Amino acid sequence: MSAPGHRVRQGVAILGSTGSIGTSALRVLERQGERFRAVALTAHSSVDALAAQVAVWKPAYAGLVQAHKSAPSTWGAGPECLVEAALHPDASIVLNAVVGAAGLPATLAALKAGKRVALANKETLVVAGEIVTRTAREHGGSLIPVDSEHSAILQCLAGRQPHEVRRLILTASGGPFRTWSADRIAGATRDDALRHPTWQMGSKITIDSATLANKALEVIEAHHLFGVPYDRIEVVVHPQSIIHSFVEFVDGSVLAQMGVPSMELPILYALTWPERVPDSGVPSFDPVGSGGLTFEPVRTDAFPMLELGIGAGRLGGAAPAVFNAANEAAVEQFLAGKLSFSGIAERVRAALAAADMARGESLPALLDADAAARKHVYDHVGS
Amino acid sequence: MSAPGHRVRQGVAILGSTGSIGTSALRVLERQGERFRAVALTAHSSVDALAAQVAVWKPAYAGLVQAHKSAPSTWGAGPECLVEAALHPDASIVLNAVVGAAGLPATLAALKAGKRVALANKETLVVAGEIVTRTAREHGGSLIPVDSEHSAILQCLAGRQPHEVRRLILTASGGPFRTWSADRIAGATRDDALRHPTWQMGSKITIDSATLANKALEVIEAHHLFGVPYDRIEVVVHPQSIIHSFVEFVDGSVLAQMGVPSMELPILYALTWPERVPDSGVPSFDPVGSGGLTFEPVRTDAFPMLELGIGAGRLGGAAPAVFNAANEAAVEQFLAGKLSFSGIAERVRAALAAADMARGESLPALLDADAAARKHVYDHVGS
Repeated sequence: MSAPGHRVRQGVAILGSTGSIGTSALRVLERQGERFRAVALTAHSSVDALAAQVAVWKPAYAGLVQAHKSAPSTWGAGPECLVEAALHPDASIVLNAVVGAAGLPATLAALKAGKRVALANKETLVVAGEIVTRTAREHGGSLIPVDSEHSAILQCLAGRQPHEVRRLILTASGGPFRTWSADRIAGATRDDALRHPTWQMGSKITIDSATLANKALEVIEAHHLFGVPYDRIEVVVHPQSIIHSFVEFVDGSVLAQMGVPSMELPILYALTWPERVPDSGVPSFDPVGSGGLTFEPVRTDAFPMLELGIGAGRLGGAAPAVFNAANEAAVEQFLAGKLSFSGIAERVRAALAAADMARGESLPALLDADAAARKHVYDHVGS
Repeated sequence: MSAPGHRVRQGVAILGSTGSIGTSALRVLERQGERFRAVALTAHSSVDALAAQVAVWKPAYAGLVQAHKSAPSTWGAGPECLVEAALHPDASIVLNAVVGAAGLPATLAALKAGKRVALANKETLVVAGEIVTRTAREHGGSLIPVDSEHSAILQCLAGRQPHEVRRLILTASGGPFRTWSADRIAGATRDDALRHPTWQMGSKITIDSATLANKALEVIEAHHLFGVPYDRIEVVVHPQSIIHSFVEFVDGSVLAQMGVPSMELPILYALTWPERVPDSGVPSFDPVGSGGLTFEPVRTDAFPMLELGIGAGRLGGAAPAVFNAANEAAVEQFLAGKLSFSGIAERVRAALAAADMARGESLPALLDADAAARKHVYDHVGS
């Protein structure tokens, strides 16, 4: 092995660099500067934050999804900047931390170019799981999850094949309403829902954690990433968020990956996989200090989004895309104060019922289904 | 892959077939009869139990360590039957479940013959860890642990190298005296000490679990099996015995292996490693039903055998052999009612202080040190 100083540093494109995952990733790159460098950064609309990052990291490419008059003329602009960043020749790894289905074209482009996609954009796999995994297979690209649950499963699998797996058990913190009655949850406010007990994240994913829609998206993502059928994927509530997921093998043995809740570890692992490299950024796990680990069943009656989403996953075709798009639209309306908390599941259920599922599974058909589902939610909010 | 029915069945020699591990192994072989068959069985002195097993399993070889007049003339007899069974040409795997240092010659013989040793006899590695691991390396034999803790570590490592490991954390149930005061422990009776909270095992290992000597032996065993220095091996008390051990990697990630306490799983894994095969013998792990997992620091003041043993391991040379032999003798005297519970540690400490550690690390020197340590304990009990 050559000395670390002589190693070729891999170029990383970070899509969504000013968000929670993006800033965590830059902290990882700061520590792992001998192995990686940021070569492309994109943000949605945080022009000042991106300008500050560009000043520090001097990436070869910068881009802003929402064009802004104060953005430098050298920056890429508009949604196409995501694909431009992903395809930048200096980037061998694309960390896709875009929020929502908007991240899909960049994931597909990077996989077609045979790159590694470190995927924090789970909607990519929910909307078009078959297409995305097939693209990776056909073009030699690799798809490494950044979600803590899926990173845990990848680490526990350590190369074992789907037929060696009896069950995947994803853990869920249970969100801020874990102990609330169903009635109280129905009237939860925006502030209530944004108060996540264990993870600091962006607002969309925090609401998804409160409804458990996030866990449904993760079940669908796990199905596609690991090739395990839905009836062998379970969810258990684990309020401490220390165990990030379990894998039970066919011989009855169970492995779990654990640690303090921090996205820096799954980000690092997605960059270095299948290797592990020394890193001191994450506090060591202290079993005694962890104060005990507990597990509870999911209250599916109080959190209808979980079964709605998994049901859409089992249905397949455009259903997961409809679930995801309707959820994105409903969460947006909830955050804007236009929809109650219980209204999110009601609107998503209605959008699924109204969707035309016979349109096939081509990417245009999936994107049509996505658009129709969003429209269905917008048209019916307040009605 | 050929159909299971056409697969060549691997022959297994079980040394200690009538004990707790041996009978568990035969239950595993009953379920996995398409893959494995028992070709040699040995017992220490349970002539009737061995005869019953021979009638069912019809092994090519049977042997009894303590000659007995009612034993069939076709059986091997005396301590050399262990090596004869291990070297039986039909056996490609040797499950060594002999109690104590008496298991060492058979382990060495099997490794020299290039066989797989499924090792439940941890004293083998404690007494002569360097010699045993070198023998395995030089002759192409493999050494797969059957202890639940070491099986857990092997499963978590999944082929990763010592330099990728930051810490091994072995779990300990804490034994029956976990919550007792040091004063009360000092006067514990034989019956108190044999009442293990989570594992059903033989009497020697159950006493070792009560003193935590067992955990010291496991730390030494882990050091030799995985090539990890002592200052990166820790012990934590985990009363539920669900998590069988943790591995922390250099990037801060922690893997754990878990499941209901049953030796059948580590036995099966030692037979099939590096593969996993479907097996329904062990009840599935149920996180919700597990009732929560807790961790406590070891009370080293109340359980002096842990630090005594790890200290002997760090010292190296003959010290681990002395610790192990003195412990075996002291436990024997305790079980015979000739030594108090606190007397076990006192006698072991005295034997370590009296031992001549300068005799070198050849096998004869180690066995001399072993014999001298036993004599030291026997000579001083009651004095």
